[in-house]
Amino acid sequence: MKDKPLILVTNDDGITAPGIKALVEAVKHLGEVVIVAPDSPQSAMGHAVTISKPLRLEKTKLYGDIVSYQCSGTPADCVKIAVDKVLHRKPDLLVSGINHGSNSSINILYSGTMSAAMEGAIEGIPAVGFSLCDFSIDADFSLAAKIASSVAQNVITNGLPIGVLLNVNIPKVPIETFKGTKVCRQAIAKWEEDFDERHDPNGKKYYWLTGKFVNYDKGEDTDEWALANGYASIVPVQFDLTAHNAIAIITQWNIEYEN
Amino acid sequence: MKDKPLILVTNDDGITAPGIKALVEAVKHLGEVVIVAPDSPQSAMGHAVTISKPLRLEKTKLYGDIVSYQCSGTPADCVKIAVDKVLHRKPDLLVSGINHGSNSSINILYSGTMSAAMEGAIEGIPAVGFSLCDFSIDADFSLAAKIASSVAQNVITNGLPIGVLLNVNIPKVPIETFKGTKVCRQAIAKWEEDFDERHDPNGKKYYWLTGKFVNYDKGEDTDEWALANGYASIVPVQFDLTAHNAIAIITQWNIEYEN
Repeated sequence: MKDKPLILVTNDDGITAPGIKALVEAVKHLGEVVIVAPDSPQSAMGHAVTISKPLRLEKTKLYGDIVSYQCSGTPADCVKIAVDKVLHRKPDLLVSGINHGSNSSINILYSGTMSAAMEGAIEGIPAVGFSLCDFSIDADFSLAAKIASSVAQNVITNGLPIGVLLNVNIPKVPIETFKGTKVCRQAIAKWEEDFDERHDPNGKKYYWLTGKFVNYDKGEDTDEWALANGYASIVPVQFDLTAHNAIAIITQWNIEYEN
Repeated sequence: MKDKPLILVTNDDGITAPGIKALVEAVKHLGEVVIVAPDSPQSAMGHAVTISKPLRLEKTKLYGDIVSYQCSGTPADCVKIAVDKVLHRKPDLLVSGINHGSNSSINILYSGTMSAAMEGAIEGIPAVGFSLCDFSIDADFSLAAKIASSVAQNVITNGLPIGVLLNVNIPKVPIETFKGTKVCRQAIAKWEEDFDERHDPNGKKYYWLTGKFVNYDKGEDTDEWALANGYASIVPVQFDLTAHNAIAIITQWNIEYEN
């Protein structure tokens, strides 16, 4: 008899966030679930790991019978410590999220949710990050949870190509108008920064990072297009960042180093 | 008459690190240099950005006539605030480093040095990250500086393909045995974590992240091979993480969401 799949659940909004609770509910029938998630919100942490201070790892009772730990580190730290100190083996699936807010397009690079999934993929674990395009604390995760459940089942059944993880974003739409899922490429987009300049009580300047997200990509095969048109986007993602087509171009350069 | 190129210099080891000093010296003859770098070390920050607290930005006199600012944020923050609040325009080149320690292979994802370069590339700035495979504070940056100077000159002269930045690593070898530069792909490698478990004075456990880097990639066209064989590695990097080949595979899945 085959053992039940071992499923590691993590996120970046912290172990008490409604999004991770929805994700646990969505996947718990698919295998043995273990939760290792940050003890506090870690949004916009990118792929940070904690090397300059030690980590804490504490067992919690937040999820009843489901084994759960909170960790003082980043989402990538949670995956690393889960594999080494909690599971003592590679899980069969890693799911991260459901994030409160979109992680489409270039936001994958800033996203703690996706950094956890990417850390899993680097370690050879089939991994998926889920994000709902709704920042509010009382967002409705019901549609996102259904999609998470089905995507997780598909990954368990079909596996993922080597070196590939998934970035799944779910639009904020009522299920009645939802159009289904669409496998996409990452849109070419960026943040146009606008730092909000203020003065502290001592008269010294400080700055809040603000800005607006701008999609320059007119393609109808992108995650941004899918989300804007009522679809959930599924982007297959790789952690080999080599721009293979550029190798031949750069090879022609003449790099000098002798005087 | 064409204006001199505007060159933004940043890093992740902090504005006083010997590596950034070497980089400033290496590129200052190529254009007008402006430095905006972290006020404290930011290693392993990945592509983190600071959204939960405000940033400080202060002019320094550390570099004499060269305009320099220290910022309380991450390397990616430094690039964002430099463009918006210091330069008020897109620079012609961004150089990040020279990092004290390697950022080859998968380490690009954890690297603050490379996140600054990637942030530049997302903003449309030709960008290069430089790292010397020597962690020591009194490392010899002379060879790395020569390569940085020549690579920077090449980027100014030739430009970079759209969406491409460069990850340049320089081996710790005497210039006499240095074999030259090699344009490579990112090696398939990973960290094998091993958390060092300790007890605090109250008897509670805590963990230090340790581990060893393992290269699984036997290819002779990788950055790891180049560095191990006395070459500096130049990897062209892209921030479109889409695994384009996987789109057709995942499209065949059946994702259910209706009960």
